[in-house]
Amino acid sequence: MPSHYHNFTNSLPWLILFLEAVFIVFFYFSDYDEAMTSISYPDFQDVNHMVIFGFGFFLAFLKRYGFSSIGFNLLIIVLGVQCSVLIEELLLFLPDREIEDDMKRLTKATLSLTAVVISTGAVLGKINPVQLSVMTVVEMVAFRMSRWIHTTFLQVSDNISMMHVHLFGAYFGLAASSRFSEPLPGSEKNANTPKSDLLSMLGTVFLWVFWPSFNSVLAEDKSIVICNTYFALAVSTVTAFMLSALTTKDGKFKMTHIHSAVLAGGVAVGYAAPIIDYPWIAMILGLLASVIAILGSYCLPRCLNPVLKIHDTSGVHFTFGLPSMLGALAHIVLLVIQNWTDTPSLHLWVTIYIWAFFLTMDVALITGFITGIILNFKLFKTIPVSKYFEDQLYWEFPHLAVEF
Amino acid sequence: MPSHYHNFTNSLPWLILFLEAVFIVFFYFSDYDEAMTSISYPDFQDVNHMVIFGFGFFLAFLKRYGFSSIGFNLLIIVLGVQCSVLIEELLLFLPDREIEDDMKRLTKATLSLTAVVISTGAVLGKINPVQLSVMTVVEMVAFRMSRWIHTTFLQVSDNISMMHVHLFGAYFGLAASSRFSEPLPGSEKNANTPKSDLLSMLGTVFLWVFWPSFNSVLAEDKSIVICNTYFALAVSTVTAFMLSALTTKDGKFKMTHIHSAVLAGGVAVGYAAPIIDYPWIAMILGLLASVIAILGSYCLPRCLNPVLKIHDTSGVHFTFGLPSMLGALAHIVLLVIQNWTDTPSLHLWVTIYIWAFFLTMDVALITGFITGIILNFKLFKTIPVSKYFEDQLYWEFPHLAVEF
Amino acid sequence: MPSHYHNFTNSLPWLILFLEAVFIVFFYFSDYDEAMTSISYPDFQDVNHMVIFGFGFFLAFLKRYGFSSIGFNLLIIVLGVQCSVLIEELLLFLPDREIEDDMKRLTKATLSLTAVVISTGAVLGKINPVQLSVMTVVEMVAFRMSRWIHTTFLQVSDNISMMHVHLFGAYFGLAASSRFSEPLPGSEKNANTPKSDLLSMLGTVFLWVFWPSFNSVLAEDKSIVICNTYFALAVSTVTAFMLSALTTKDGKFKMTHIHSAVLAGGVAVGYAAPIIDYPWIAMILGLLASVIAILGSYCLPRCLNPVLKIHDTSGVHFTFGLPSMLGALAHIVLLVIQNWTDTPSLHLWVTIYIWAFFLTMDVALITGFITGIILNFKLFKTIPVSKYFEDQLYWEFPHLAVEF
Repeated sequence: MPSHYHNFTNSLPWLILFLEAVFIVFFYFSDYDEAMTSISYPDFQDVNHMVIFGFGFFLAFLKRYGFSSIGFNLLIIVLGVQCSVLIEELLLFLPDREIEDDMKRLTKATLSLTAVVISTGAVLGKINPVQLSVMTVVEMVAFRMSRWIHTTFLQVSDNISMMHVHLFGAYFGLAASSRFSEPLPGSEKNANTPKSDLLSMLGTVFLWVFWPSFNSVLAEDKSIVICNTYFALAVSTVTAFMLSALTTKDGKFKMTHIHSAVLAGGVAVGYAAPIIDYPWIAMILGLLASVIAILGSYCLPRCLNPVLKIHDTSGVHFTFGLPSMLGALAHIVLLVIQNWTDTPSLHLWVTIYIWAFFLTMDVALITGFITGIILNFKLFKTIPVSKYFEDQLYWEFPHLAVEF
Repeated sequence: MPSHYHNFTNSLPWLILFLEAVFIVFFYFSDYDEAMTSISYPDFQDVNHMVIFGFGFFLAFLKRYGFSSIGFNLLIIVLGVQCSVLIEELLLFLPDREIEDDMKRLTKATLSLTAVVISTGAVLGKINPVQLSVMTVVEMVAFRMSRWIHTTFLQVSDNISMMHVHLFGAYFGLAASSRFSEPLPGSEKNANTPKSDLLSMLGTVFLWVFWPSFNSVLAEDKSIVICNTYFALAVSTVTAFMLSALTTKDGKFKMTHIHSAVLAGGVAVGYAAPIIDYPWIAMILGLLASVIAILGSYCLPRCLNPVLKIHDTSGVHFTFGLPSMLGALAHIVLLVIQNWTDTPSLHLWVTIYIWAFFLTMDVALITGFITGIILNFKLFKTIPVSKYFEDQLYWEFPHLAVEF
Repeated sequence: MPSHYHNFTNSLPWLILFLEAVFIVFFYFSDYDEAMTSISYPDFQDVNHMVIFGFGFFLAFLKRYGFSSIGFNLLIIVLGVQCSVLIEELLLFLPDREIEDDMKRLTKATLSLTAVVISTGAVLGKINPVQLSVMTVVEMVAFRMSRWIHTTFLQVSDNISMMHVHLFGAYFGLAASSRFSEPLPGSEKNANTPKSDLLSMLGTVFLWVFWPSFNSVLAEDKSIVICNTYFALAVSTVTAFMLSALTTKDGKFKMTHIHSAVLAGGVAVGYAAPIIDYPWIAMILGLLASVIAILGSYCLPRCLNPVLKIHDTSGVHFTFGLPSMLGALAHIVLLVIQNWTDTPSLHLWVTIYIWAFFLTMDVALITGFITGIILNFKLFKTIPVSKYFEDQLYWEFPHLAVEF
């Protein structure tokens, strides 16, 4: 291996040691609050389990990249959560901030991390852990900034603001991935095998089961959010199977369709779930989300990505990006339908949500793009294209044979 | 591949689209109830997790059928839950029905789905997804009808009535499977490999851990049901290891024994769990259930199945059918022992439970048999025997090698 | 296979039948208490899930020993829990015992079982199920005795006393393993493969996610214990990645480091979690624990183990033993720092905790060593060294190829 790999691998430990030292020093000024907890431990646990276990295995679909998918997912989550809790601490110095208890802070930090995990999906296998750690910290700061504008200037509720996490994560990741070299055309390393697909299915099923927890954890009326999310997920699952069979040559199902489209309904319903009063609306939304995800999985890699020179390893654009856009749109449409008699207040809310949407998109795209540029500085020792999607670059194996 | 496969695969998307359209149209007349919820989200979540994740992997023991086991399990559950919730809505038009909140309705729907999942086990690998979707809808209607008679005419409590789900599922599946052709004798495709056994063990352990949640979710005194179920499961696990070593040639354990017998105690104790006051009774019941399951795994495939021309892929007869029968019997015996002084009331209850048992069996066998006949109409394009137990028939694979 | 294997396999069923019969007879004198439950079912469920599923897969890292790791783990847990509940029943005959409800008793039994599971790690692949069952019963009795002295004579709280479970398990296992023959030097059977590493990672991630539940289940102020455990785990994860890259030749990560060191923080923080008021203290503790675990993974197998003729299959010494020692020490140091003004009471508590620590160590080492001697009596048919780490000795396989 050329010597600059050694350099990169040698710089990682010092980078995360530095980060960890910074965290510990800052945490020195932090203590536990006695505030009444508004989020119970099981609620936190569901989200935590989902992000660490569910997303870890969800991303383990590359045949030679399973260790890295699961291992680095754990690493960036613990780095990101500490970073996110610290940012909250620092924000307390701003005027008029209400104090939150620790469990709520941890839960929000874990929810925010979803953005980083989704972004990782876009650059999976092409980014080294040094770049990944930097990206995690930058993205957490950028997402928190975007949310801070939401809640401070736009009066968007905390819950709705958090639901932009999929949108932010997907477009940040896509913008960043546009600065990474594309994999070699003939390479078969970024393929999946039946075994890795099954591992990934394990993660997907976990995410599916816990998605109602994710959408409801910050909501006020949990019960309605849970039911809406469940029905949206159910219909997107049915639609995913339907469209997968309709769009393949000989009417077979494609596992990658199932992976991405079964979750689309849960993503799309996130924004509007608290105000949907009838299950059929959530079901229609789930159906549309799944349609968008599967059509996107055909169109985007052929039409959009080559033009923009994007390579989106795990398809976060159609799995999380498009359904999230649809959800934001559906939220506004529902608001209009439900409140069309009350014009002035409606006008205000629609403006606010449109602003919140574009703000999130802009911050995600701009900071993502800049992060992509920075990460490709020589300093960070980018991986050469021939070494993409290889566990072997990062992990010591008992033997050399590693495909699974 | 002959052309009629194309036909079958082509008809699936339209069938599930049609079903989904029907569901959405009917759900149009449904809204969320404001009733106080009597089932908490974590209770529902346990059952949901168990049915989707646990049973999905539990059924993934065939070496070439992992994708289908897990994928189709998810598909039929989401179809079935929507169907079941709708049936409840329709039943509301009957007089004297109490309104249930949405979480309870979802939980009951998920519990009922266990019947379909168990039936699937009997015809696993021999049924195509079109047939599976039809079977799901028919079985949900039949099981709901049987439960409706239980609660309306026989005054059986909702909880006890729901515990007939294993009995119903097993015998419905067996009756249906009697109409499917048996696999070729020399075929090795319906075998398990160490890797697929391990996947299945993953599901089994999940089911084991969550079984107390399953039995207690509708019970009034949850604590006693949980403890009884735990002890019954514990003793059936010990018994499973013991009998497995005793019955194999050289005293080794057999993974398929462990898979089926560790859960037998949980199934058997379901009916009587609320009235068992001493742990040792639950333990004895767990022991007997495990004995029956393992003896059944030897006798049934050799004695009963060839006579009735049944091929029971995952052994639901001895895993769920026989232990469930034992449980129903034990329930009645315990009632007699506990109330033998109060003859008139005892007489009434014993009659009721015996009726409930035979009613469930009859409805399961008759509707299962009829469903089996219908499913083998030419319309549904049955799979030829040579294509049994093959993921490749339904899934597009990245490469052709698929054994795992 | 030589004939005495048959003997061993033939004696297993009778042994566990005997044990189970004893359990059922003793349970005959036990009934369910009506006491108010202080531990909720979800709390118990987390611990149960963690011990059965998490530890089962955590130990499945040997390439040819996956079935046994997961299967025997389930077997010893159900045996041990019954044994432990019985011991509690018997202890009720001692004066001044308060009655505990069943859920609490089951939870404590499951927590205690962690000791046995950890000990199993030290002798994994070298111990046959007969020996394992005997070890389970003996270790449960020994650990309960040690805890009884803690709570009766030393006034150690139940929660702190239970946190000695890792210490006890590790040193009991090490002492016992010193009496087993070491594996042949050239043997490759006790190696891990990428696939088995991934299975083990699945278990590790489960344990990681549920560790806060483990530490908090008996604690009074759960919230603070959960947060401290989370931060300790987070920092040990970062440290594990850092040190793994620093200590390998070419800066790569080693999966076995990650397996053992990510959990070290959770183990170490167990004792002191309820009295740590600032997250940074938990974080420092997590960092130190991870450092000790990784340094231990280098030093112990080279320096200490050859001298003491110990072979520690899954490295429980550095995964659980050393971090637990560190935790006990940190607990005492923190007590001193927090209460140095209140000298008399401080003196008392420090003495008590030091006594509790050495008592646990002594009981563990002595009973472990004696158990090791007893288990190697000819009666128990020890496995010959050439048959170590082989599923095939215990399990009937569909085919002969079993490496995964």
